[in-house]
Amino acid sequence: MTSIALFTVATADPGDLEPLRTLTGSGCAPDDIVAVIGKTEGNGCVNDFSRGLAAAVWEPRLAADAVTVFSGGTEGVLSPHVNIFVRDDRDHPGFDRGLVAAAGRTRVLEPHEIGRDAQLDAVTETVGTLRAALGVRPGDIHLVVVKCPLLTSEKIAEIRLRGEVPVSADTYESMARSRAASALGVATALSECDRPRALRALAGAEPVHSARASTSAGAELADCHIMMVAESAAVSNPLRAVHGSMADALDLDSVTALLDRIRAQGGTVRQIFAKAEADPSGVVRGLRHTMSTDSDINSTRHARAAVGGLLSALKGDGAVYVSGGAEHQGPPGGGSIAIIYELPCPEKDEML
Amino acid sequence: MTSIALFTVATADPGDLEPLRTLTGSGCAPDDIVAVIGKTEGNGCVNDFSRGLAAAVWEPRLAADAVTVFSGGTEGVLSPHVNIFVRDDRDHPGFDRGLVAAAGRTRVLEPHEIGRDAQLDAVTETVGTLRAALGVRPGDIHLVVVKCPLLTSEKIAEIRLRGEVPVSADTYESMARSRAASALGVATALSECDRPRALRALAGAEPVHSARASTSAGAELADCHIMMVAESAAVSNPLRAVHGSMADALDLDSVTALLDRIRAQGGTVRQIFAKAEADPSGVVRGLRHTMSTDSDINSTRHARAAVGGLLSALKGDGAVYVSGGAEHQGPPGGGSIAIIYELPCPEKDEML
Amino acid sequence: MTSIALFTVATADPGDLEPLRTLTGSGCAPDDIVAVIGKTEGNGCVNDFSRGLAAAVWEPRLAADAVTVFSGGTEGVLSPHVNIFVRDDRDHPGFDRGLVAAAGRTRVLEPHEIGRDAQLDAVTETVGTLRAALGVRPGDIHLVVVKCPLLTSEKIAEIRLRGEVPVSADTYESMARSRAASALGVATALSECDRPRALRALAGAEPVHSARASTSAGAELADCHIMMVAESAAVSNPLRAVHGSMADALDLDSVTALLDRIRAQGGTVRQIFAKAEADPSGVVRGLRHTMSTDSDINSTRHARAAVGGLLSALKGDGAVYVSGGAEHQGPPGGGSIAIIYELPCPEKDEML
Amino acid sequence: MTSIALFTVATADPGDLEPLRTLTGSGCAPDDIVAVIGKTEGNGCVNDFSRGLAAAVWEPRLAADAVTVFSGGTEGVLSPHVNIFVRDDRDHPGFDRGLVAAAGRTRVLEPHEIGRDAQLDAVTETVGTLRAALGVRPGDIHLVVVKCPLLTSEKIAEIRLRGEVPVSADTYESMARSRAASALGVATALSECDRPRALRALAGAEPVHSARASTSAGAELADCHIMMVAESAAVSNPLRAVHGSMADALDLDSVTALLDRIRAQGGTVRQIFAKAEADPSGVVRGLRHTMSTDSDINSTRHARAAVGGLLSALKGDGAVYVSGGAEHQGPPGGGSIAIIYELPCPEKDEML
Repeated sequence: MTSIALFTVATADPGDLEPLRTLTGSGCAPDDIVAVIGKTEGNGCVNDFSRGLAAAVWEPRLAADAVTVFSGGTEGVLSPHVNIFVRDDRDHPGFDRGLVAAAGRTRVLEPHEIGRDAQLDAVTETVGTLRAALGVRPGDIHLVVVKCPLLTSEKIAEIRLRGEVPVSADTYESMARSRAASALGVATALSECDRPRALRALAGAEPVHSARASTSAGAELADCHIMMVAESAAVSNPLRAVHGSMADALDLDSVTALLDRIRAQGGTVRQIFAKAEADPSGVVRGLRHTMSTDSDINSTRHARAAVGGLLSALKGDGAVYVSGGAEHQGPPGGGSIAIIYELPCPEKDEML
Repeated sequence: MTSIALFTVATADPGDLEPLRTLTGSGCAPDDIVAVIGKTEGNGCVNDFSRGLAAAVWEPRLAADAVTVFSGGTEGVLSPHVNIFVRDDRDHPGFDRGLVAAAGRTRVLEPHEIGRDAQLDAVTETVGTLRAALGVRPGDIHLVVVKCPLLTSEKIAEIRLRGEVPVSADTYESMARSRAASALGVATALSECDRPRALRALAGAEPVHSARASTSAGAELADCHIMMVAESAAVSNPLRAVHGSMADALDLDSVTALLDRIRAQGGTVRQIFAKAEADPSGVVRGLRHTMSTDSDINSTRHARAAVGGLLSALKGDGAVYVSGGAEHQGPPGGGSIAIIYELPCPEKDEML
Repeated sequence: MTSIALFTVATADPGDLEPLRTLTGSGCAPDDIVAVIGKTEGNGCVNDFSRGLAAAVWEPRLAADAVTVFSGGTEGVLSPHVNIFVRDDRDHPGFDRGLVAAAGRTRVLEPHEIGRDAQLDAVTETVGTLRAALGVRPGDIHLVVVKCPLLTSEKIAEIRLRGEVPVSADTYESMARSRAASALGVATALSECDRPRALRALAGAEPVHSARASTSAGAELADCHIMMVAESAAVSNPLRAVHGSMADALDLDSVTALLDRIRAQGGTVRQIFAKAEADPSGVVRGLRHTMSTDSDINSTRHARAAVGGLLSALKGDGAVYVSGGAEHQGPPGGGSIAIIYELPCPEKDEML
Repeated sequence: MTSIALFTVATADPGDLEPLRTLTGSGCAPDDIVAVIGKTEGNGCVNDFSRGLAAAVWEPRLAADAVTVFSGGTEGVLSPHVNIFVRDDRDHPGFDRGLVAAAGRTRVLEPHEIGRDAQLDAVTETVGTLRAALGVRPGDIHLVVVKCPLLTSEKIAEIRLRGEVPVSADTYESMARSRAASALGVATALSECDRPRALRALAGAEPVHSARASTSAGAELADCHIMMVAESAAVSNPLRAVHGSMADALDLDSVTALLDRIRAQGGTVRQIFAKAEADPSGVVRGLRHTMSTDSDINSTRHARAAVGGLLSALKGDGAVYVSGGAEHQGPPGGGSIAIIYELPCPEKDEML
């Protein structure tokens, strides 16, 4: 049960540790960090070493139970930054609840397990453990961020050497399969679907999705890193969250509806966590898009750039967490979206 | 003085002539076409052959004084389409004015003239001619679209063979220089600045811009193709336009202000013509962007994707004309924007 | 039975018809053209409109039974050019045989047939027809070039609308599946394997390959264009060919062996037709390559650049026909290679 | 005066330290390392974080006076690896001379100095210091590898804030300018030209080049890292080197001539260090290349892939050090090339 504060800090490059110095300068200890959820400026695909560089500099400085999640790709106006979730033991009088967060890891996955049932189950289990640790119900949970492994050429060769079959022989495609398994693991753990249905979805036979999962894949890890954010009455702080789904990349209305709810409470947007993808049908609102036929730029890069352009304009700056590839994270062509916001400090006389 | 109608039609590929058949099916003759202003799905850069393919199939079918402008790059949610401006001789009772358009070409530019004074002057001259033909004042003009040449390796070699110096030895950079010269030619012709100031701006010493210029460069032509759209009381049709500038890629407010003006008149948005670019300062609203340090994707592609994501969401579909590289077309990091809209058919009793 | 001459001519851009003018200037008629096999400067992948542009300008100028094959991608030192195979009715005294060529097309393939048995069979049939027309045995055949269709987002949607399953939902991957089906169709027609074995190979269960197939895919056609080159004693001209396989992208020895055979006959290399691919094992001669984990540049582009670098140096110029993606065209990681050369004009006294 | 051994070891990823373990396993201490000269698998351009990741893991493990040089880009068949130059104090009887190496750094360069005289002078000075330390004459030197800084968007902004002008406002172009300044600094230090001529060359007015310089730029450093390899009679080991230039990317003859010299001595090639670039004239041996008009892939990537394809085939494996962008390192369109080889162990009776 960890009450949290959120620091969103710009980075000068993927290896920049200035945000850590900022944090400790403001009185937090590195050991208070629950998770570092960052956007780094690589291609967000298989050979994105910006994620690996960020992990290499951050991980030695964090507590053993903290996790990092670096999502590559700051296309368009998106701006590289880290979102540091920190234990907040300060007293926040006047708030009857607040945001809590927990982080954990699955076991290391064997290469042949990536994108398959075993990964789904491992994620379900860890998400369940985090929920229990936070003491929250599924309905209290707004965001589950997962970083999961992918298949490189070497891992594919290793799988074949064992006489097994990789979930995909295409390294970029393996990212999608890994994201899907993670997302369906979250959906199962949050009771958004049962396991048999999740497995059918993983096989491509069911349109299941989670509106709270945000999963991304990388070559820089072999297990899954998971962070959960929920609302809890057991703590008091000014942070709150809303979540929902964009129906497609043009779904301004859904975002506006969430922002209106925040505005109605006098809240200030602190961060938007959104998933985005190229509509697998090849069209958005009846018109053809070219994200899936562009052999120069992968579709996840396109999707981040476009949805990032919209959400950055709505937020007013580009330090938005938009991650590409939304398999089972929101409806096809759309994506999950969670917004963390801060309530104003209550007036003394409102404070009983 | 040509009263116009506007057809915006999706294309199945750059060589798709189905929109022409649609047009003629609806009673228009190919000879009525003033200009075809399209978005094609190439990279929008030097080696974008989608533009060349579109030009190869369209140009033989148009009248000698019509022009094509194909702007490559439908990154993100942008959808390939053509905007066909057609002479409209129909009677539109109840309108006291309407949109008019004219098209023309400059002389063929010598390679060493590209991006230099000679190009600026040629554009100024042709824009002046078009304005005179339409009989409009500079203040009536909402949009001047220019397609202009660029430097390939061969043209650079040809320039050097003559003992001259190319405006840039970098083919991609030559596009920016050509767009700049064209934009400043428009600015001069529309009295947004005088020629000496335009020349200083071309040399990098003045921050002059036109809010009505939309210029793009391509290897598929050696002259400049120019189309002007203005409002005129000499015709009557339901089309109107507004124009302005986005101050940066996140400038939702400026776009909303234009849309509000349209909405206040009961208008329906027909098309948005916008320029977009990576802020040359390297930051947007104080936060670093990575468009200018991404050696895998050129900055114009990033900018189109981001601003296209925003404008498509506002329009409700991806068939928006967003063109990358906004040198002297709007403030640095921003871009010119023109919206063509249609007024509702007036009630009989409003019609005097 | 068409005795041929070969013109290899540089192009200034994909739409350049100067080579046609060169040809007709030298006394050939456009109707004499059997096939135009060109390298154009696009990305060689799904959205390569350089191929479409070349096809759009060349096809209206050729006889109905001639074909075009444009292979995109002139990475590295490769130079855009066309190889024009022309009927050669001239008398070439002193040669007891010569090269012949024939061209044809399969029926239009339905989208769901692409990459599947139906395509394999259609190619087998047309190759058989061409062989019969030339009156040559399989062993006389040195090269069969095939251009075949791919799946775009629209074709994938169309397949699904019919309740069918596309061979791949990944447009780039569909190129590989189409190349494979074409190559195995050639192998079957040339008796390099029987049909059941070819079908098992198409399903990924057999390592069959043809050393004479050179297949590439494109969005610019819906049928398969096929050209066959063989040696025949029924004609007399100075052209000859050798063919073989590169075992991997570093296989200098195999190429040198072919060149030595040519040199031993006093021949002059006229053109090299080679296929290249990233070794699917992820390694070349025990060392890791990164072509299959590079999400910025597709592996076919890498492979063309590397093998093109080697073959261009061996030929002495970059106008080499290197095509990427060698599924079942040579051993895995290698590729088929055919070299057309010209024998010296025989001395009079050698000429009986 | 450091007698050296050379270990060339494959890497599994940019952060792979297994080569260090291999080294220490074979009895060398990390402190014996003079320089780590590696090829990493990024894009080799501005946003190549594979270099930064490699530097982040290697540098803390090396002695203060050792340097790292990571050159990004293993396009085509090139294979990621490190070349570790290690102090070799072993006795090598029978050799009357051997290779020596020294490493050092310039002072930190101010952003506005990058690509300018100040950088040239700093490199000249450090190269001079290294030469003096090795006690060799310019003619004994075979290779001077330099890693130098580039301009990011932030550095450009910083320069402008000071009222200065960056050497280029294009971040990718700044790499070329930095490589040029470093190469001319080497040329000056090795007396290949005098300083006034080097400065004119830097201004674009002289075709000076060094056949021994191999310079590359990166964002991961602010000073220049320099390593020099020379032959010296003061040490005895079996390593030798030859150097020369490729006249263009197809210059097989020059490479063959070097390899023949090695073969004549019974030597075994240990490593090839080559520079490669797109010919600035836009043609190679009279035929157009498209490396400088490809807006999807930068020309340095093309050049590495092509020359890497050739040199890897000649060496027999892909672990070749090919670096892109050869400004003033060999003639335009060509590049410097140095080959380190090992002589066979002499027979006892040859050993006096």
